[in-house]
Amino acid sequence: METRLLLLPLCLCWALSAGGAERSGPPNLLILLMDDMGWGDLGVFGEPSKETPNLDQMAAEGMLFPNFYTANPLCSPSRAALLTGRLPIRNGFYTTNAHARNAYTPQEIVGGIPGSELLLPELLKKAGYVSKIIGKWHLGHRPQFHPLKHGFDEWFGSPNCHFGPYDNKATPNIPVYRDREMIGRYYEDFKINLKTGEANLTQIYLQEALDFISRQQASHQPFFLYWAIDATHAPVYASKQFLGTSQRGLYGDAVREIDDSIGKILKSLQNLGISENTFVFFTSDNGAALISAPKQGGSNGRFLCGKQTTFEGGMREPAIAWWPGHIPAGHVSHQLGNVMDLFTTSLSLAGLQPPSDRQIDGIDLSPAILQGKLIDRPIFYYRGNEMMAVRLGLYKAHYWTWSNSWEQFSQGIDFCPGQNISGVTTHTQEEHTKLPLLFHLGRDPGEKYLISFSSYEYQEVMEQISPKVQLHKETMVPGEPQLNVCDKAVMNWAPPGCEKLGKCLEPPKSNPKKCFWPH
Amino acid sequence: METRLLLLPLCLCWALSAGGAERSGPPNLLILLMDDMGWGDLGVFGEPSKETPNLDQMAAEGMLFPNFYTANPLCSPSRAALLTGRLPIRNGFYTTNAHARNAYTPQEIVGGIPGSELLLPELLKKAGYVSKIIGKWHLGHRPQFHPLKHGFDEWFGSPNCHFGPYDNKATPNIPVYRDREMIGRYYEDFKINLKTGEANLTQIYLQEALDFISRQQASHQPFFLYWAIDATHAPVYASKQFLGTSQRGLYGDAVREIDDSIGKILKSLQNLGISENTFVFFTSDNGAALISAPKQGGSNGRFLCGKQTTFEGGMREPAIAWWPGHIPAGHVSHQLGNVMDLFTTSLSLAGLQPPSDRQIDGIDLSPAILQGKLIDRPIFYYRGNEMMAVRLGLYKAHYWTWSNSWEQFSQGIDFCPGQNISGVTTHTQEEHTKLPLLFHLGRDPGEKYLISFSSYEYQEVMEQISPKVQLHKETMVPGEPQLNVCDKAVMNWAPPGCEKLGKCLEPPKSNPKKCFWPH
Repeated sequence: METRLLLLPLCLCWALSAGGAERSGPPNLLILLMDDMGWGDLGVFGEPSKETPNLDQMAAEGMLFPNFYTANPLCSPSRAALLTGRLPIRNGFYTTNAHARNAYTPQEIVGGIPGSELLLPELLKKAGYVSKIIGKWHLGHRPQFHPLKHGFDEWFGSPNCHFGPYDNKATPNIPVYRDREMIGRYYEDFKINLKTGEANLTQIYLQEALDFISRQQASHQPFFLYWAIDATHAPVYASKQFLGTSQRGLYGDAVREIDDSIGKILKSLQNLGISENTFVFFTSDNGAALISAPKQGGSNGRFLCGKQTTFEGGMREPAIAWWPGHIPAGHVSHQLGNVMDLFTTSLSLAGLQPPSDRQIDGIDLSPAILQGKLIDRPIFYYRGNEMMAVRLGLYKAHYWTWSNSWEQFSQGIDFCPGQNISGVTTHTQEEHTKLPLLFHLGRDPGEKYLISFSSYEYQEVMEQISPKVQLHKETMVPGEPQLNVCDKAVMNWAPPGCEKLGKCLEPPKSNPKKCFWPH
Repeated sequence: METRLLLLPLCLCWALSAGGAERSGPPNLLILLMDDMGWGDLGVFGEPSKETPNLDQMAAEGMLFPNFYTANPLCSPSRAALLTGRLPIRNGFYTTNAHARNAYTPQEIVGGIPGSELLLPELLKKAGYVSKIIGKWHLGHRPQFHPLKHGFDEWFGSPNCHFGPYDNKATPNIPVYRDREMIGRYYEDFKINLKTGEANLTQIYLQEALDFISRQQASHQPFFLYWAIDATHAPVYASKQFLGTSQRGLYGDAVREIDDSIGKILKSLQNLGISENTFVFFTSDNGAALISAPKQGGSNGRFLCGKQTTFEGGMREPAIAWWPGHIPAGHVSHQLGNVMDLFTTSLSLAGLQPPSDRQIDGIDLSPAILQGKLIDRPIFYYRGNEMMAVRLGLYKAHYWTWSNSWEQFSQGIDFCPGQNISGVTTHTQEEHTKLPLLFHLGRDPGEKYLISFSSYEYQEVMEQISPKVQLHKETMVPGEPQLNVCDKAVMNWAPPGCEKLGKCLEPPKSNPKKCFWPH
């Protein structure tokens, strides 16, 4: 209570100096980014177990976006797009090693986020924001790519996925950082029990978030917190208290723990009296990983296929905006949104302009969020260096279709288990650039019923879509691809801080090679 | 306001005479039964267009049942089960013409609800209820089977589906009744425009409901209203004011009109001051008809297949209970429920016992609804004369699998469009009675991942399920099948009241035959 009373005069000062109404200063920004969580994993999006009461409540108090997308069906490019506001093909988070391949940042990757890219936390500094990332970075693990080199003030988490355990000989275990230095490694200092699925990492990430929020509230500086947790990415994990509590098995346990944590974070904002000054956005980096389902993967509801694909299941994301007193409670916005919009929208809420020296793909969603407006814009579905599909309004046109190769599929890797749409979920890359496959996502969200090429509807819609695609392609200047080269020498052998822990390992001789991206 | 004040002393009298608290008299009963609406058609169950604000609000104010089932994946048997509390194989709503065939009541059907069956409205008379059915009856169209012969006091609607238009020569148009007499025929006096999808029937059914509720409220007698509308059954229709308003096309227009109507019905209960004395239950007769999707069929969310099948998409139904002041708001019950439970639960709420001279399959859900209890019970999935599957807890065991025949499938009739689970969605009837196919519906609601026959889990679960199935089969005494014989002479040629309208037609000579049921 004392804290809240002390805060009041300062807030008023802020409001007065900004010339606005009470508490009208730039809001804190809190992005809750899930890992491989699917559109269908939330009760509010129809998961039958209805085990996300806190997220459902967040939607009831905020705004739900059923038409929100990622910029890429894989983690690294999606995250690079979120933080730069730019398509991966522009910011370099793609590969040209082969056509239309998903690429990311495993330990062998040489590249990372280019120094020329401007990230959200860098730009927010101009408005006095203090920024922290908690969880998975995934924009390059070599020191020059680290969060604190790209605008973040604090980091607790890891540069790569929590794969492992490794032997620290052929492959080092993944480090966990606090700020600039590693403080341990997964499976050594930060345990994940692959047999039971137990790990207390989400609890640690929760505590980090609560501590940071509380510290920033006391400091009266606006903050940007990027909470990029990864319990729902295989190997899926949950804390002991949540293990076995879900109807859905281990994956559901992880979702329940995250839901519980988000409830606690929102509650802390309310308890600290800053909920009306904190813009919170919940979403995920890509569709549920159906290859890991049902024990280690989530649900994309009734959408087609999953992670790795440019069907709706691969790229449509659960999304909720929450900002009590600013966002009307219980609304649904059919605005087409994209993770890249979080970049532009965050800048807008902070009173800043996006960079004008480069193409920004994210749009400012604040008119949609605050005034219920609908902004006409296309959604482009990329896989690596190829624009596979585009959505305009309720229509989606596929210019290329591919699930995965026959070779991979015959090995049991199935991105569309139980689903098969003839000529659509193809196992060879099929080009449709001359005559795109068209679907109406309103009456056919599952992309099952092709609109006839000879129909009036097809002609009319393609006349709208074609010029937009043509313009997009003509004006596209791809960035330098960062995900082409792999080298075992760049793995996390001796991360900064390893010497203090006695955890430095000897790297092998450098042997850079083209990375192999099968999908 | 005057009405409410006048009502108060009477209500108190009722409460005192019943020895309970204020307004504790037997509640009005309102069953809102949808036709071919799927689990996934409601916003609250994840339909991406989120176009059911009134139903979602009903759930927010009431109790949602994500695990609610029908007794049969086709309309007539489902409805017979709801009104008798008994499986169709007991009440006669099945066929023995072929194995595991869905059968219903087309115009040619000779049979109907047997006189020996006791229907809910008949029993409710003992507690002073006035009962009305609005919409589709479907328990036999010959006069002896009519609603007013089976306990209903009023009827507005039709005995059969609104198929047509017919020529009144080979086939008569379907009559619409008020009480005991026909008042017109579909496509003649009650128009349905198959080209535009326009029909104002839902508005008529809404007005009938509002009028009845208002009349009953004034008469101070408890009522049972069975609102069995059919706009979402192909040919799908909507009123002019709703046409073209949905993102989902005509089917969505129909859903929007129904949602709007239900909002108005609940509002009228509130305005009349009887919402706290009216138990309302919303559900559907079977899964969405995916053969008619996307323009004339709905969505079963992420469940497998649709209407006609015993997969989850065929038999899991949207379900909401609403009773302000009695049912806690915003709760989700994972109770396994069935339309047959509406029979037993309604009797219980009316203070009546179910008949003791026959097997009743429906259970009293009031402990689940009013006290949040979970009652352990199996769900049996029947198709015609065969128990195809059983659910116990989160597990479902298939004893027989079949989608439809190769012959039908090759003609383009697909009950599982875009879905194919090898060995599960079979096109021949596959027997698994020795080694049932087992699924965990919590982590695998889509019935995609077979539990290994050799696993400990399989052994353990089947040890629970097998004795329940054995007992069920051993004690099953099938009723006389009513859906075996068809005869063109029994069609709606000259329904009661036709002479007043000059709408009597000449029946052909009687020629009874075994009905052909392809699925």
